[in-house]
Amino acid sequence: MLRSFLGVAQTAERAKFDMLFLADGIGVRLDDKPKGSLCRSHHNVELEPLTLLSALAALTQNIGLVATASTTYNEPFHIARKYGSLDQISGGRAAWNVVTSWSDKEAWNFSMSKQLDYDTRYERAAEFVDVVTGLWDSWDEDAFIIDKETGVFFDDTKMHVLDHVGKHFSVRGPLSVRRSPQGRPILVQAGVSEPGQQIAAQHCDMVFMAKNDLKSAQDYYASVKDRLEGYGRQRGDLLMMLGLTPIVGRTRQEAQEKYEELESLIDPIVGLQLLYRSFGDLSHLPLDGPVPKPDLENVGLKSSAQMYYDLAQKQNLTIRQLYKKLGMAQEHKTVVGTAEDVADEMQSWFEAGAADGFNITPTHLPQGIDDFVELVLPELRKRGLFREEYEGQTLRENLGLPVPVSRYQQASTGNKLMAS
Amino acid sequence: MLRSFLGVAQTAERAKFDMLFLADGIGVRLDDKPKGSLCRSHHNVELEPLTLLSALAALTQNIGLVATASTTYNEPFHIARKYGSLDQISGGRAAWNVVTSWSDKEAWNFSMSKQLDYDTRYERAAEFVDVVTGLWDSWDEDAFIIDKETGVFFDDTKMHVLDHVGKHFSVRGPLSVRRSPQGRPILVQAGVSEPGQQIAAQHCDMVFMAKNDLKSAQDYYASVKDRLEGYGRQRGDLLMMLGLTPIVGRTRQEAQEKYEELESLIDPIVGLQLLYRSFGDLSHLPLDGPVPKPDLENVGLKSSAQMYYDLAQKQNLTIRQLYKKLGMAQEHKTVVGTAEDVADEMQSWFEAGAADGFNITPTHLPQGIDDFVELVLPELRKRGLFREEYEGQTLRENLGLPVPVSRYQQASTGNKLMAS
Repeated sequence: MLRSFLGVAQTAERAKFDMLFLADGIGVRLDDKPKGSLCRSHHNVELEPLTLLSALAALTQNIGLVATASTTYNEPFHIARKYGSLDQISGGRAAWNVVTSWSDKEAWNFSMSKQLDYDTRYERAAEFVDVVTGLWDSWDEDAFIIDKETGVFFDDTKMHVLDHVGKHFSVRGPLSVRRSPQGRPILVQAGVSEPGQQIAAQHCDMVFMAKNDLKSAQDYYASVKDRLEGYGRQRGDLLMMLGLTPIVGRTRQEAQEKYEELESLIDPIVGLQLLYRSFGDLSHLPLDGPVPKPDLENVGLKSSAQMYYDLAQKQNLTIRQLYKKLGMAQEHKTVVGTAEDVADEMQSWFEAGAADGFNITPTHLPQGIDDFVELVLPELRKRGLFREEYEGQTLRENLGLPVPVSRYQQASTGNKLMAS
Repeated sequence: MLRSFLGVAQTAERAKFDMLFLADGIGVRLDDKPKGSLCRSHHNVELEPLTLLSALAALTQNIGLVATASTTYNEPFHIARKYGSLDQISGGRAAWNVVTSWSDKEAWNFSMSKQLDYDTRYERAAEFVDVVTGLWDSWDEDAFIIDKETGVFFDDTKMHVLDHVGKHFSVRGPLSVRRSPQGRPILVQAGVSEPGQQIAAQHCDMVFMAKNDLKSAQDYYASVKDRLEGYGRQRGDLLMMLGLTPIVGRTRQEAQEKYEELESLIDPIVGLQLLYRSFGDLSHLPLDGPVPKPDLENVGLKSSAQMYYDLAQKQNLTIRQLYKKLGMAQEHKTVVGTAEDVADEMQSWFEAGAADGFNITPTHLPQGIDDFVELVLPELRKRGLFREEYEGQTLRENLGLPVPVSRYQQASTGNKLMAS
């Protein structure tokens, strides 16, 4: 299994991608609804992202490594330490995708009868991220002097004890990992809710966004960026990355045939399972009939359920048509066409202020990424829209993001801004 | 930093060692007592074992990878998953050294005002290990059929939901990692207390032991082995590995000079810090005076304090002499001499039923391991006491340990024994 991930990572690194991103859930989150669907899903047994990315760190040199971890079922000290360690191992290429989790099935694996309510999850997440960034500031960059004469490893005036006491956590510190080669590991957020956007604007370097239409992408993009100033940050200090599923062919017809072939492979039982989390079990309804309104108060991930229903309404989709769309790209934007078509779409969204970059989410691996690299990248490069070489050593340098100033430096200089 | 660990791992693998072991604590556990000692200790900033060993897994082929993790500050689901994932990544070379932790300083990093009391720590540890082994049995070895025709990934009669409800944990499962290539990752324990020995005898594959004199090593060895039958296990199902610090020279005089040189490098302030955890601050006492009795009710790790005091009493050591001994090898057995001397000592303890193998704990790296490989291994090989080649693919095969039978197989066959 390591080998197949390594192949994808090496392809992406040869092509000079910024990073490789692993989504995650902590447990088998699916129901066997409709019956027979669970054993048809490959999402049940996967490698754990931090161990997998640590292994890939050892076998790659430049590509960023983005692992998802939940603030609901972890402790900030472990997260700060593990990502700090991955960052050391990789030479400054680690990133944490901050999620709050959405499933009672995960709660059941952690001695809880159900997940925390929505507000508590986000309140905990905000404090969690604050603690983690504080722990990452435990050691100044030049703390380790390692003086053979005196036997002194570090200058203890450059060690900082966090002493955090908050509503959800009390964490003393200091962290037992030295300062990150990129200042701090990169922080990523994907929540579209109000508290999710606040966390992104206050703390994060990057947002993964999932939008299908240009207008709502532009609105969301602006909504997050507009919040930055309130935290003393510049608009360029946070990058908005749009999920994009390209189905690319040498001709439009070839691309369309690829799309249809892939779509035809989606088993109806797996399609209905995709809808289950948002709509409940629809197996008693005709597949070619309309999509019913979801019960928004009782679904796992409200925002997705609303988005899927809106999509079905707007495009007048049947149940079968909706699950086929989701089966291909979940809530991500899909482009079916030639390299020029895909590049056109990417360029126009970028120029229209809907995205700073793209998170390529292929329908399947490794072919999906191979196609993109072989066909679309040359077109983007021709237009001067994709790098020829990595700009720096760390993920932060490659993303062109400012190095965060330690909170202890800020305190001593009175400077609340990020250094750039 | 990865590079220096990699060098040691590759040396050990070339030499056909069973495994590489990383001890761990979760945070900076030392006090700055006496003042000026904290910044002279290198134990404050280290790479986190699971991320480090995952990286090393990618760069090695045969050597076992033993990471320490605490049952007091972790959740069983995370531990089962991360070690399960490391085991997949490494092709069956993962091992978990189960510890309960001993420091309030770790508790302070996890929203606790002090560590759990001793009995609760061990009670929690026993339940924790039971949950983890249960989660590792979530999938039968042949569960994943991956049938392209029907789209079925796994046979759901071969997936097992743990549904554990206990005093400390409720964990539903199943684990989201497939069954280990070695049945289950190897379990290691090092606690000498009564409950520690019970956990070892019931669940573990290996015990790391620290004994200075033959008699107490033999007694402890027998005490653990004698418990195995009560759990339906054979004496060979658990290996007792003795910590050994060799100082080896081409002549006895060279070895003795090495020892004295290393000993002379121990700064008194670091020496007193080594004693602090067992004896409190002794900096007001004469270094060349006697070692006072420790306050056993108020020390972090009772068993060590008692052992150090006994050692000082028995050998009539001064404070300086005691810290020098500990500085060289902590509580491990030390042998200073030629390759023949070291091999003699290892062979005689092995033959006297004091150890099944040795955990080499050099004074410093990489020289300590290089010396052992260059000088002692040829002597052990000459005597037929050390392998020429790895026997198998997995750590379990190389250790000659039986593959555990899944608890669900045991239940269905009524067989409570391990398969061999």
